[in-house]
Amino acid sequence: MAGRKLEVRYEPSGTTAHVPPGTTLFNAAHWAGIPIESTCGGRGTCGKCKVQVLEGHAERTLADYRHVSGGLDEGWRLSCQCEIDGDMVVDVPRALMVPKAATMGVGRFVLLEPNAVKYLLTLTTPTIVDARSRLRRVIDALVIEGLEVTVAPSVLPRLSAVIGDDEVSVITATVVGDRLIDVENGDTTERAFGVSIDVGTTTVVATLMDLRSGGAAAVESTINRQAPFGADVLTRVSHTQMHGPEGLEQLRAAIVATIDGLLGSVCATAGIGRDDVLEVVAAGNATMLHLLLGVDPESIGHSPFIATFLEPQDLRAADVDVEIHPEGRLVLFPSIGAYVGADIVADMLATGVAREPVTRLLVDVGTNGEIVIGNEDRVVTTAAPAGPAFEGGQILHGMRATEGAIEGVVLDVEAGEEGAVRLQVIGGDVEPLGLCGSGLIDIVAQLRLTGLLDGGGMLLSPDEALAQEHPLASRLQVDDEGVRRFALTDDVMITQRDIRELQQAKGAIATGIEAAMRERGLTVAGLDEVLLAGSFGTYIDPLGARVLGLVPPVAVDRIRAVGNTASEGAKMALLSFREREVAFELPGFVEYLELSGVEDFNERFIANVGFPPLELVRPGAIAGDPAP
Amino acid sequence: MAGRKLEVRYEPSGTTAHVPPGTTLFNAAHWAGIPIESTCGGRGTCGKCKVQVLEGHAERTLADYRHVSGGLDEGWRLSCQCEIDGDMVVDVPRALMVPKAATMGVGRFVLLEPNAVKYLLTLTTPTIVDARSRLRRVIDALVIEGLEVTVAPSVLPRLSAVIGDDEVSVITATVVGDRLIDVENGDTTERAFGVSIDVGTTTVVATLMDLRSGGAAAVESTINRQAPFGADVLTRVSHTQMHGPEGLEQLRAAIVATIDGLLGSVCATAGIGRDDVLEVVAAGNATMLHLLLGVDPESIGHSPFIATFLEPQDLRAADVDVEIHPEGRLVLFPSIGAYVGADIVADMLATGVAREPVTRLLVDVGTNGEIVIGNEDRVVTTAAPAGPAFEGGQILHGMRATEGAIEGVVLDVEAGEEGAVRLQVIGGDVEPLGLCGSGLIDIVAQLRLTGLLDGGGMLLSPDEALAQEHPLASRLQVDDEGVRRFALTDDVMITQRDIRELQQAKGAIATGIEAAMRERGLTVAGLDEVLLAGSFGTYIDPLGARVLGLVPPVAVDRIRAVGNTASEGAKMALLSFREREVAFELPGFVEYLELSGVEDFNERFIANVGFPPLELVRPGAIAGDPAP
Repeated sequence: MAGRKLEVRYEPSGTTAHVPPGTTLFNAAHWAGIPIESTCGGRGTCGKCKVQVLEGHAERTLADYRHVSGGLDEGWRLSCQCEIDGDMVVDVPRALMVPKAATMGVGRFVLLEPNAVKYLLTLTTPTIVDARSRLRRVIDALVIEGLEVTVAPSVLPRLSAVIGDDEVSVITATVVGDRLIDVENGDTTERAFGVSIDVGTTTVVATLMDLRSGGAAAVESTINRQAPFGADVLTRVSHTQMHGPEGLEQLRAAIVATIDGLLGSVCATAGIGRDDVLEVVAAGNATMLHLLLGVDPESIGHSPFIATFLEPQDLRAADVDVEIHPEGRLVLFPSIGAYVGADIVADMLATGVAREPVTRLLVDVGTNGEIVIGNEDRVVTTAAPAGPAFEGGQILHGMRATEGAIEGVVLDVEAGEEGAVRLQVIGGDVEPLGLCGSGLIDIVAQLRLTGLLDGGGMLLSPDEALAQEHPLASRLQVDDEGVRRFALTDDVMITQRDIRELQQAKGAIATGIEAAMRERGLTVAGLDEVLLAGSFGTYIDPLGARVLGLVPPVAVDRIRAVGNTASEGAKMALLSFREREVAFELPGFVEYLELSGVEDFNERFIANVGFPPLELVRPGAIAGDPAP
Repeated sequence: MAGRKLEVRYEPSGTTAHVPPGTTLFNAAHWAGIPIESTCGGRGTCGKCKVQVLEGHAERTLADYRHVSGGLDEGWRLSCQCEIDGDMVVDVPRALMVPKAATMGVGRFVLLEPNAVKYLLTLTTPTIVDARSRLRRVIDALVIEGLEVTVAPSVLPRLSAVIGDDEVSVITATVVGDRLIDVENGDTTERAFGVSIDVGTTTVVATLMDLRSGGAAAVESTINRQAPFGADVLTRVSHTQMHGPEGLEQLRAAIVATIDGLLGSVCATAGIGRDDVLEVVAAGNATMLHLLLGVDPESIGHSPFIATFLEPQDLRAADVDVEIHPEGRLVLFPSIGAYVGADIVADMLATGVAREPVTRLLVDVGTNGEIVIGNEDRVVTTAAPAGPAFEGGQILHGMRATEGAIEGVVLDVEAGEEGAVRLQVIGGDVEPLGLCGSGLIDIVAQLRLTGLLDGGGMLLSPDEALAQEHPLASRLQVDDEGVRRFALTDDVMITQRDIRELQQAKGAIATGIEAAMRERGLTVAGLDEVLLAGSFGTYIDPLGARVLGLVPPVAVDRIRAVGNTASEGAKMALLSFREREVAFELPGFVEYLELSGVEDFNERFIANVGFPPLELVRPGAIAGDPAP
């Protein structure tokens, strides 16, 4: 799958890009972090992205004849039209202005070039001699801006109100992609917004972005209103199976209502109208995106796990009842497979996993653990069925990460004779009510590190702990059914059964990582970095993850929680049409490994249910760990 | 405007085309009547339109590298991608199959290549190894057909119902342009229809076309339901001015209801569903098309006569309440100017005026007389304000061309002592009720030919006629106000005032023709043919038109009534995407002359109000006239 890579060196910086044949010089430059200006979206119409090819073959295109006819023999080409079919050296003139840019995601350099742009136009007076239609005046004025647009028919009735017959008109034209979607009187260019949405099974997050400044104007998250129909993807899918078209419509309406509520909320916060929102870019797992478009996800639920669509979508938001500008667009990230969804593609965009030379493992931990591994040369992804433990399911005192949930635990064996159990509780100084996923990982890792849990996952019995004079021995208990447990407080326990659940969950993910690394031909030594993504990943203690064997044993400072990179990726695609193009192309670059097709999966899974030897994973065990 | 023309010779036929630089070899071939096969609509993706360039320069395009890489050095190119920038000789291989074709319009050769096509696809079983999405399976199957499609989002929810998980599926995919708009179970390829509509101010005509066979399945015409709001374009425009947005909405709803009625009717006649109609292609004057889209036509009504749009439109029919397939398209022909509308562009498409070497004058007579003059080298158009006379307005016994209208008149001075007045009445053997436009032209021409009307347009007085012993003298009368008149029957008269009205009307058109011929640099001797178009044009007697000086004095057999060429042009654009492209490009090729900008218009108009000398226009006066 990796294919032949071609090298392009960009002068005068000397930066090189390694790209597959057929990539344009413009996209390769962007890929390598070199900004080249363009106002037409890489359509070959604005002529601003001219570069000079110093070495290598560069076909002449029709757009070149139009825009650089005088310089063809000297190697001048429109970089957006020039496809790379051999190694090249290219000069990028300094004169190319660098547009506004920002660092987003995990150190990604993003040029502010949104797909939706408002243009301020001044139109001259029509006369008998210049009797162009109003529409033609607008189209011609946009050509001067470097754009060749198509026109949404709903613009036509507005034109006569906005453009008078007998005076110079100053109007604002709204262009999304290459489509003119609105004309307004006067200057409204400061009102151009987009919303990025991370459609999670549990939580949905919306961020209102100011497309002119690139800044976030409001952010809001809420529970997915589909929750009453099932906690996870599979129960949602079975709701549609059991209740047929009405069940599907219930779920569709629920997610649309969730998004509608968020849109109303972010618009109110920023004090803007829904009409000022020109685009929504959404990422989420394949099932959520199916439901959002009213597409039955049934076949995602069983082998051979077929999605109805994985491809990116770009549709009129109003057509699926998402209320923004009447001609505004809803753009869905593509998915890679039925269980490696658009959220993971957004993760990849935000982290640069497929675009940088460093080799990284990205894990998005949840009911499914999605795994991405590789670098700019080759990337393998897979999804491991972890089950509900990380979401607090099947855990005696498990709960979601809401107020009262223990999200962090330190077992302090040095603190006095009886030691201490230090808890970090969501909401601060409130009564701990249970354990959320990160707390669960923490307590199990701490039990392991303090010698209360053996490598097979068995808690010491109270007697064994007492015999060892373990300071925390008094916290070990046995319930009426003879099940061992550890008391975090008088009311919150972690049981031997809970630990077994967690072992199953982390074993599945570890096995998935192992399989993907094998497929990618990598060993632990070849891993430069481990990224924990997703809202849950943000809260996992890197050391805890290593101690449990959830992630491979690399130095702790190479394990990074990168936060909600799905949201971040969606924001990037909103602010940069080039980033969006990259996102749309990622599935074609990435290999998908279906775990159920891995022959020795079960044997390996069983081997991964246990914990790695402590001497390999305790703090300081690996070169590069912070000093103890 | 004419620009440089380049010559392309197509071997082995030797046919040549003369085209502007930048035209593709493919379009030029079509222009010249040479069919080259293509299934991708000239998008460079199917690779079927390969030709060999024998002489001349032919740039290599990226599509060439993909499809003819082996033959580049021998001059093989995709004709749809190769723009002509110098004289060329090209070989069109015999192997290129000629698709189904028909002669339409005025001897135009049209290939049956509709923009809307249904494809029968067989999709294989999904497996763990081949877990492509349902959508991807369809897209991939269409790629094999030579198509790269985008996908209407409404297709997605249908895919899972149409494509099972576990068996080979046979489906029908409906593609309009490059957009997949539907998938259906099984083979429905025989149900693919389109409707052409000529949106006249008075009459609207719809033709249901079978896109598979190219045949007409039903045709229907009806009165435009806007009629109660005004008889002509200007009164409709003033209705919107007087009644504001509600007035506009009334007119919009009326034309939509008119079209809806016609659609219902033609579908019922053919026994098909509305969903089977994939496209509607409409032509009409600019005001009608404005009203159809709910666009205020106000500024068309006064100087400087600015239309809000003249450009072609391609929109979802449902978005403007035209009920066909939910994703079906409504395509509007472009207009040339506010008063040379899309109907005239359709006329030009159907008659080939801009595409053949013969020099022709095309006149569409109505409230406005639209005039097109020229040939493949250069075309000038204009519109002359004729007023309502030709529609029966301002004429004492004027009426529309409905039952009881006198549509033809012969004054027979040889028939006995008192001569005879022979009338052709619509409806056959019914009581004549009045004069429609063609009858009006006939009677005035006959009065002129029989010596009852002088060159200034004055009727003989009864006394003068008696003095000349004119057989029809008894039919000349003077009314109570002293106005002279001629009695066609006891009840139907034509008055001196009627004749003055007609003189004004024909004078305006004649002056428009004169101005356009001058602009085009043509004299009468340079005219190969005069075409009378439009529903009214069909009924005008060519000799009568010449006797009145409505058209220039050319041999009668060179004056042809060509019927409703607007409908014919719309049908051609429905059956052939290439014809549609030509129609869309015509306005860019044609020069528009605004008569109000012609300096000596008034002087010339006054000169044209009189009739030409009889010796120049009577039957047999011109070489080429049929033997008397």
